[in-house]
Amino acid sequence: MSRLMHLAVFAQGVGVGQSVWRSPRTAPDRMHTFDHWAHLARAAERGCFDAFFIADALNLSPAVETDATDRPDPVAILSALSVVTDRVGLIGTSSTTYNDPFTVARQFATLDHLSDGRAGWNVVTTAIPAAAENYGSARLPEHADRYERGEEFVDVVRALWDGWDPDAIVADREAGIWVDQAKVHRIDHHGQHFDVAGPLTIPRSPQGQIPLAQAGSSPTGMKLGARVADLVFATQHSIESSLEFAEGMRALAAAAGRERSAVKVLPGVTPIIGRTDEEARALAIELGSLISEQTTLKFLNQTFGGIDLSRFGLDEPFPDLRDSLPTNASVGRPTLLTEVALREKLTVRQLAQRVGLSIGHRTLVGSPDTVADDLQQWFEAGAADGFIVLPADLPLGLDDFVDEVVPRLQDRGLLRRKYRGATLRDHLADG
Amino acid sequence: MSRLMHLAVFAQGVGVGQSVWRSPRTAPDRMHTFDHWAHLARAAERGCFDAFFIADALNLSPAVETDATDRPDPVAILSALSVVTDRVGLIGTSSTTYNDPFTVARQFATLDHLSDGRAGWNVVTTAIPAAAENYGSARLPEHADRYERGEEFVDVVRALWDGWDPDAIVADREAGIWVDQAKVHRIDHHGQHFDVAGPLTIPRSPQGQIPLAQAGSSPTGMKLGARVADLVFATQHSIESSLEFAEGMRALAAAAGRERSAVKVLPGVTPIIGRTDEEARALAIELGSLISEQTTLKFLNQTFGGIDLSRFGLDEPFPDLRDSLPTNASVGRPTLLTEVALREKLTVRQLAQRVGLSIGHRTLVGSPDTVADDLQQWFEAGAADGFIVLPADLPLGLDDFVDEVVPRLQDRGLLRRKYRGATLRDHLADG
Repeated sequence: MSRLMHLAVFAQGVGVGQSVWRSPRTAPDRMHTFDHWAHLARAAERGCFDAFFIADALNLSPAVETDATDRPDPVAILSALSVVTDRVGLIGTSSTTYNDPFTVARQFATLDHLSDGRAGWNVVTTAIPAAAENYGSARLPEHADRYERGEEFVDVVRALWDGWDPDAIVADREAGIWVDQAKVHRIDHHGQHFDVAGPLTIPRSPQGQIPLAQAGSSPTGMKLGARVADLVFATQHSIESSLEFAEGMRALAAAAGRERSAVKVLPGVTPIIGRTDEEARALAIELGSLISEQTTLKFLNQTFGGIDLSRFGLDEPFPDLRDSLPTNASVGRPTLLTEVALREKLTVRQLAQRVGLSIGHRTLVGSPDTVADDLQQWFEAGAADGFIVLPADLPLGLDDFVDEVVPRLQDRGLLRRKYRGATLRDHLADG
Repeated sequence: MSRLMHLAVFAQGVGVGQSVWRSPRTAPDRMHTFDHWAHLARAAERGCFDAFFIADALNLSPAVETDATDRPDPVAILSALSVVTDRVGLIGTSSTTYNDPFTVARQFATLDHLSDGRAGWNVVTTAIPAAAENYGSARLPEHADRYERGEEFVDVVRALWDGWDPDAIVADREAGIWVDQAKVHRIDHHGQHFDVAGPLTIPRSPQGQIPLAQAGSSPTGMKLGARVADLVFATQHSIESSLEFAEGMRALAAAAGRERSAVKVLPGVTPIIGRTDEEARALAIELGSLISEQTTLKFLNQTFGGIDLSRFGLDEPFPDLRDSLPTNASVGRPTLLTEVALREKLTVRQLAQRVGLSIGHRTLVGSPDTVADDLQQWFEAGAADGFIVLPADLPLGLDDFVDEVVPRLQDRGLLRRKYRGATLRDHLADG
């Protein structure tokens, strides 16, 4: 059997394109309703995606005045979506910096029960100072501390998920024995950051070990991903750098004692689709024109750890900040963005606009064939095991992809025509 | 319009009766499935209940070997249930000792959006030492500290819920203005236990201020309930003591500057229903016979803060422990249980059995008419504004109540025949 692409959708409000709510292609008044979310999850399932992924942040967008963001509790939304979908994986973000492992382990195990084995957890360490202010932290923990806590957090959660053996429930009505107590284990974890006794309050979930996603692209982030993640979301702008990143992840996975293919690398892509390349370019210009400079700059400043980038001059070449990032910022994404700006000789304003349409990910503008060709090329080069699709506008940006690009990928034998398994882990192992 | 009863169901696994999973009336193999929960929530809605309430605990039952408990994440389950119900309120427990207010505020606001205004939060301070062990606490906080933190926690959550004005969203596509920033407020709370900046990451939910439930029966617990709760779940075994408790709550509410009727007092009741009183008594004996002494004693010991009650002799009169409870235990429930045991001259074993069928609440055994008569009597005496129904076995214990007792209460004009409002707050204000 030939190798198959793994697709996930990155769902956020009315899309990742900043100010796309101003476009008649969106219905921002419906953004907070269950029907909106249900439409998106069903579309992902119609497209045989491995997973539906809800982005998250623990602070209100600093550009709230012009940016229609919506950041509901991911587990709550995914639990509701489990009722109206049958096969698609349901991945939610939860922060290891601002939660407790017992809570997170239980939430995702509950989602896994509700969905018959479709839960996934996107592990983030949360690098936004504004999030720290909502959690009583005098200051944001340093990068290294966050990852150290994150590593231990994941280990505790995974131990809790293994606390109930698959055959722990006996249910002997005659003898009155519900579980074989020898098969329900305390974990008695005593570490640097956590002391957790266990076991969980619910039996082992259908998947048991729930698949993990991870998006850190710093060396520390990649190390965590290589050790524990089943899916890695990446920001990559060229086949060459993506191939290098993917090979790096595979080597790190092997070094951590796993199969090289255990980690599926999914670079992000924001497809802007038209019937022709020309139509697609016109749509990209139309959506881009809705973005206010102020909005994108606030976001870019935040991504760069709070630096005010406008002081470099909006129409000046983007400066090389790789060696002068604040130590508490994420390292991976600002570094990648700086490299894109230097390579393509972008100004500060141009990088802000680029980021505004795709929150820093690669935009892919063209007809369904153009988009399918590009994805096929990346996939066949080994630069991607699939893609995380970040539609600029929702729901149409997703519908366009599912209805126009997906059939082409299926015709080329690159994507399943129907689900062969029932769980998220099944989908990840399929192809 | 005459006063109407407010009913809520207390749903927990296959019922609150310990070891009822051994009865053919239950299907414990289905307990972890969404279909089980959906059946229960739909039954509550069929009965025009104000609310469906999920009990919770942050530790595995110490009697797990014989007791088929199930404690999934309440917000996840309720979010899924919002999809298959239209009117019934959805109340979940969340602990102020082992959570952060920003997280809890966002979870319940998300549930309120998903359900179009049906969310409710049961505020608990969590007094179980085994729960502390799952959250890295060297020891359980003392009673007073827990409540002090709980009071501040609730204030922060309510401030966050008011962070977005109802008309904050402008959605002016032409001008590119999404919200009127003057109508989205930081809370900048700096207190004894929490520092929280706000605002929340999602707009004001349909109810805005989500109704709160509370169950503390100690003086500190009652004070919190009187100040903030819309619903108070109580453990009461006689009309007289329940009337005294309810009048106490009403007076405390008035002292806190609220309407006396602002707090609905719902004593718990475990109805055991048969076609005749005789049939009901036979069912109570049948279900009670399934309970193992070991199970109920473990539970009773835990309720009394970890005292080993068997050392007083299983067949000896229950001792008066009211002045010698451990200081970190809940005070209210052990005191009430001790009073029941002293009044009815119960032995240690008998109190354990009583507790085992109804986790310490009042059992009400009889035909549908007998049960309806009793509830009417309590209600008309002012000893209850309604009831929290804790079926011993699920789903039949709830179905019996809804199909046999509810129509009788409706025929007597004590209960709505259909929902007149859309939100949980509407139901609480109805009658």
